[in-house]
Parts: sequence; C-alpha cells; structure tokens
Amino acid sequence: MKRLTLLIMALTAVFSSYSQEALWENTQITSPEIHADHTITFRLRAPKAVRVQVTGDFLSKQKVKTPQGEWEIPGTEDMVETDGIWSYTTSAPLVSELYSYAFIVDGLKINDPNNVFRIRDVKSVSDVFIIDGGVADNYKVNDVPHGTLSKVWYDSPTLGKSRRMTVYTPAEYAQNTRKRYPVFYLLHGMGGDENAWSELGRAAQILDNLIAEGKAEPMIVVMPNGNVDQEAAPGEGSNGFMQPTMALPRTMDACFEESFPDIVKYVDSHYRTKAGKHSRAIAGLSMGGFHSLHISKAYPDMFDYVGLFSAAIMPRTNNMPSIYQNMDDRLAKQFENRPKLYWIAIGKEDFLYQENVEFRKKLDSAAYPYEYFETEGGHIWRNWRVYLTAFAQKLFR
Amino acid sequence: MKRLTLLIMALTAVFSSYSQEALWENTQITSPEIHADHTITFRLRAPKAVRVQVTGDFLSKQKVKTPQGEWEIPGTEDMVETDGIWSYTTSAPLVSELYSYAFIVDGLKINDPNNVFRIRDVKSVSDVFIIDGGVADNYKVNDVPHGTLSKVWYDSPTLGKSRRMTVYTPAEYAQNTRKRYPVFYLLHGMGGDENAWSELGRAAQILDNLIAEGKAEPMIVVMPNGNVDQEAAPGEGSNGFMQPTMALPRTMDACFEESFPDIVKYVDSHYRTKAGKHSRAIAGLSMGGFHSLHISKAYPDMFDYVGLFSAAIMPRTNNMPSIYQNMDDRLAKQFENRPKLYWIAIGKEDFLYQENVEFRKKLDSAAYPYEYFETEGGHIWRNWRVYLTAFAQKLFR
Repeated sequence: MKRLTLLIMALTAVFSSYSQEALWENTQITSPEIHADHTITFRLRAPKAVRVQVTGDFLSKQKVKTPQGEWEIPGTEDMVETDGIWSYTTSAPLVSELYSYAFIVDGLKINDPNNVFRIRDVKSVSDVFIIDGGVADNYKVNDVPHGTLSKVWYDSPTLGKSRRMTVYTPAEYAQNTRKRYPVFYLLHGMGGDENAWSELGRAAQILDNLIAEGKAEPMIVVMPNGNVDQEAAPGEGSNGFMQPTMALPRTMDACFEESFPDIVKYVDSHYRTKAGKHSRAIAGLSMGGFHSLHISKAYPDMFDYVGLFSAAIMPRTNNMPSIYQNMDDRLAKQFENRPKLYWIAIGKEDFLYQENVEFRKKLDSAAYPYEYFETEGGHIWRNWRVYLTAFAQKLFR
Repeated sequence: MKRLTLLIMALTAVFSSYSQEALWENTQITSPEIHADHTITFRLRAPKAVRVQVTGDFLSKQKVKTPQGEWEIPGTEDMVETDGIWSYTTSAPLVSELYSYAFIVDGLKINDPNNVFRIRDVKSVSDVFIIDGGVADNYKVNDVPHGTLSKVWYDSPTLGKSRRMTVYTPAEYAQNTRKRYPVFYLLHGMGGDENAWSELGRAAQILDNLIAEGKAEPMIVVMPNGNVDQEAAPGEGSNGFMQPTMALPRTMDACFEESFPDIVKYVDSHYRTKAGKHSRAIAGLSMGGFHSLHISKAYPDMFDYVGLFSAAIMPRTNNMPSIYQNMDDRLAKQFENRPKLYWIAIGKEDFLYQENVEFRKKLDSAAYPYEYFETEGGHIWRNWRVYLTAFAQKLFR
C-alpha cells in the first residue's frame, strides 16, 4: 500500500497548492466549537486586528435609534485575543435552534473562514450552526429515509417564460411507483426565492423527519419563486449573477396569483399527484402568506388547507388589481367550500401582528372557522420553521 | 395602490431590521464590477484596514519556497484606499472564464461581503464571477431549456448505507415520457463530493447549453459521492455540519469501485435509461479519473465511453486490493470489448502529467485505441470544465 499512500499524500499536497483551496490558509482552527453542555466557542485568527466582535441571533438584540424610529439589531460581544487568535464563549448554554452569526473585525463584517456552512438570506450570507436536543433536531439530517430535492424548470404560459422551482418528493415516492401523493405549495417571503424554504427553512429535513416519525403524511412539497420578474433565484437564471435585493418589482401586483394555476397544472401533469382540493395545501411566510391568502380565495376549489405564516394581510381599496378586490365576497365563497383547515400563525412581536388581529376579527365576525397559533418572537425564520413543522403535521389526515 | 406601496416599504424596512439581513450593513458597494471591456473592479469598505489585497485565479501565480519544495500560489495585488473604500481594477481585460477570488485584509483572508456568489471547493469558499464572450458562455445559465438537477438518495447494499448523489435529467426528459436516455457517470476528485461537478464544474449549465445547441445528445448525468465513508457532502449527511477535509479515509481502497454497480442498478431501475454498454459513459477528474479507470476495466461490459480527466493513474503493486491488480489483463479484457471511446485529457503543467505519459505508453504498446486531449495549465477546475465540455460532445453519437 506504500505507493498508494504516497500518491494520496501527493494529491493532498498538490491540491492544497493548485486548487481554489490555495486561496485560503489552512488555519486549523475549530470554529464554532459546540461544547457538550451546548455553550459555543467562536474563534478567529486575526493577529493584526484591534477589535473583534461576534454578532448573531443567539445574542440578545440591542436597540438603536434611527431617524426612522427605534430598531432592534442583533447583539454583539467582544472577543478576546490570545496569540493572534480571538475567541468568545457563550456565557450560557444555547437552547436547541439553527443559529446564524458573523464576525466584526475592526468594523468590517465577515464570515467565519473556518465554517463553510453558510446560508444566504436575501443578500446576506451568514454562517450557521445547529444546537440539537430540541426543536432543531427536526432541522438536522437524521438517519432516516430521505426525499429527493430537485430544481425544476416549469413553463408558465401566463407569464410567457420558463421559471425555476424547488420540488421535494418524499423518500417513498421513488419506490411506490403507482401511489399518488398530495401536494403542499410552500411560498417564500419578500426578498426570498425558490431556494429560501429548502435552505433557511430546512423544509426537506423537516419533512423527512416528520414523515419518518409518522407525524406527517408523505407529500410532495412545491416551493416556487414568487417574484414574477425573476426566472429563478439570483445567479440561477439567465440574467446572470445579479445581486439579490428586497426591492423587487411585481411581487404583489397580482401576477403571481394569476399565474399560479400554471404551477399546479405543471405539477399535476409531471408528478404522481392526487389532483384535487382535498389533496392540496398552500402556505407561505410574510409575502408568501399574502400570496396564500389571495391565491386560496381566488381559486376556492383548489386548496383544502391554507396556512398564513406571519402573513402580510392585504389592505382592500378599490383600485387594486381585481384579484385583490371584493375580499369579503371571495372569502365567503372560499369558506362556503369548507376548507378543512385555515391556519393562521404569528409571533407576538411581529410587526404584522395587528394586521393579523384585524383579519381574525373579520373571520370571527363571519364565523369562518380557522385555527390560530401564536408564538413568541417576531418576523423571523426561527418562527417559520416552527410553523412549517406544526402545519405539515395537520395536512391530508 | 398607495397602501400597497406603503406596505411593501414597511416590509422592506422591517425585514432589513429583523431578519438575518440585519447581520450585515447595507454597504451599497458594487463588487466585483465587470466593465464593458472585461476589466474588473473589486471594492471593499474597510476604513480601519492598513493593507488590503485581492487574490484570485485571474492573477498570475507566484512561487514560494517551502521545506517541501517550491510551490505556486495565487498572485495578490494591493488595493488602494479612498474614503475608506479599497479598490483594484485589473490592468487588462480578462479572457472569458469562471474566476475565483478573495480579499486579504491585514493578513486575514475574507470573502467579498458584496458578492453572494460563492462556491465551496473542499474547505475553501471562494467568491466567483463569470466573464462571458468565450468559453465561459457555456458555464452561464442561458435562455435555453433547462434540465432538472436533483439531490437523490440511493441505497447501496454493498456499503450497507443510503448515500446521496446529484442527478441531472435533460430538459426534454420531463416531456418525452416514453423516451429512454443514455447515462453519463461523472466523478469528482479528492476532497470533492456529489456537489462538486454541479457547483464548480457547472455541469448542468454545460449540458443545458450543449444540448440546446445540438452539440451533445440529451443524456442523464449522474454525479455520485466517491468517498465511501460519507453518506453525503459535508452538512448534507447525518454526521452533521462536519468540516470538509482532503484527508478522507477509504477513497482509493477499492470500496467505491466495488460498490459502483449499486449506483448503476439504482439509476437503471429509477430512471428511463438505455441500460446497456453502448449507452453508458464514465469519466472523472483526478481521483475520479482513477475511479473511472478502475471501474471501467473492472466491469468491461458496462461502459462504452471512458474519460480520464487529469487522472491519478494507479501504481500497480501486488498487495493492492484485488480490483486494482492485474491491470494489464483487465485492460486487455476491456479493450477486447472495443469501447467506442477511451479519452485521456491532461494539462501540460499537471503534476500527474508524467504518470499519464506512462499510461499512454502502456496503451500504445498494446495498440489500444484512445483519444488524447492536451491543454495548457495544471490540475485545476478551469481545465476540468473544458474537458467536460469536450467529452460530452463525443458521447452516444
């Protein structure tokens, strides 16, 4: 085996020199280090830095005053230097969660060069880590059967273009080649795209785990792109490596809602679906909740399960695109068709909380049945993963 | 529309405060900026930095002496500061290519915070950009029909575990539901995994573009994980967010080769394949070339097309695992079966060049037919994308 060992050593050495690898030093630092008691140590080698901080959603928020009002921003903690390596250990164990963080080196925010696990949220790429032993066990890849996650291009005749979406098929889909499956349409928020739910949302892991435990029915999950100006997520469409932005045109102008049947038609004709209202669900976060609200009432025979996660509720004025008009009549029609579940979830600190209170009042006043799920916290992915976990268990039973 | 506009503004503002977005400032810097003449400007806001450099594979390499010998490492260029913003513009236009780069701030290597387009290579995450107008037009998402890219888990009875692979099905696969397709097995190198060819390798874009131009036959491309110790790429398997490493055990110990028929069997039973030697190709880069060499001769009835891209050629000694032994006899058997194409590609500066010279001498001495494709450059992705582009056009014709 000697020559093989030598060959492997040579390959390793030369790769480290020739490849992209060589753009980086081999710092041999462990960061983040998750200790057995669920405290975390972050480390960064930066011998010339004067001040290094860590910031992340595991720290308490701090308030800052701006001309637009008082905002909350993530907290920061100073790191301490020894021999050129800065470190910070959390003062207490962290509860189970998927967390994001970054370093601030003399005012410059950077990713942790020793952690390759990063997720993009709009135009921010954050380092992430998972603390297990609780809610985040559902977000991990566990030793269970895994579904297939695909990036699929479908044709939208209404929009006149080909568009990209993410499709999850459950593990058993590939084996049970005659069985048909219900479909859950899961929509992202503003600034998101067809990658949001499978990346920050951990949708494939959540579904894999719930299905393996028998807590959710095997289902297809379709995650389309709700920004009709985009073919696909930034970098994945023919407009090239465009920088992501929150300020996309045509996200809430009725075009997505009007073209939605193109997606359902594609899915029903390309997957083994149970094509019927009783086997279709739709839910979305924030802008995706807005889309779910309006799509489900625009097509009252399409969905038996509707989920509004921290939903933006549409103000009703008369010069709106027609699909948004006559909300009361459309809701009446939708509830005449008796959806099996109309589910509203929001956090107490969400800036859309009051809008949701008013929307529930409207439903209450008409005696439309719905379920309500209120949590702590605000307009954050931490809540949306919890809402997906809860909602998925209620579908198609 | 006024209230809708206000709602969107509110959503934008609050997202910027609440979400992961808030871990980063909105710096409003464009970096990299690709100018019309294909020069590039890189920019970084770092008012407190003393020295900022850019490094990347678009710069000439520099030689460094180490105790292990003289190595080439990527070049660096100093950036210049104005009002806290450092910038560097290339002195000449860049030729068409997919390039990688990073910044070095007072010795600390960081990603460009204004560029979300990053690709991991082993444990390095580099920023990337594409210069079009040449070879890299093939690496772009163009306005052509797009295939589906899926992350699929298959069962390997030989290895006793479920493993992840990447599968590309051509755009027409979803429409022509009775047509069967040839299959191209495409293998990564050391430190790589099932994501390597679809990310740094741009395999889906290359195949989409070649097929759309009629330069390649529509085919299924299967990109498995050649590290049998792994279920999946780092972070995608049940061992959690493990840091990637070059030094994986069991990569060249015959286990991958011996378990390879599990993959072929899965693909032939789950996809509409043409299951036969004339409709199967195998190729790989570096260690993947090693795997392709040994798999194709271990199963001489399995592949009619074999591609060795910068291949590690196995030294033959007698205490090797049996699949590596008797190379001459096995090659004789393979070439008796007259593969339609045996294709060897390597760069003149590749550290494996001489090994490939010797391997070609062996083929020549036995008068085994093969095609040889020699390029400039070394053991780098730039070459492997070119080899894939060339090889894919020769398959299944």
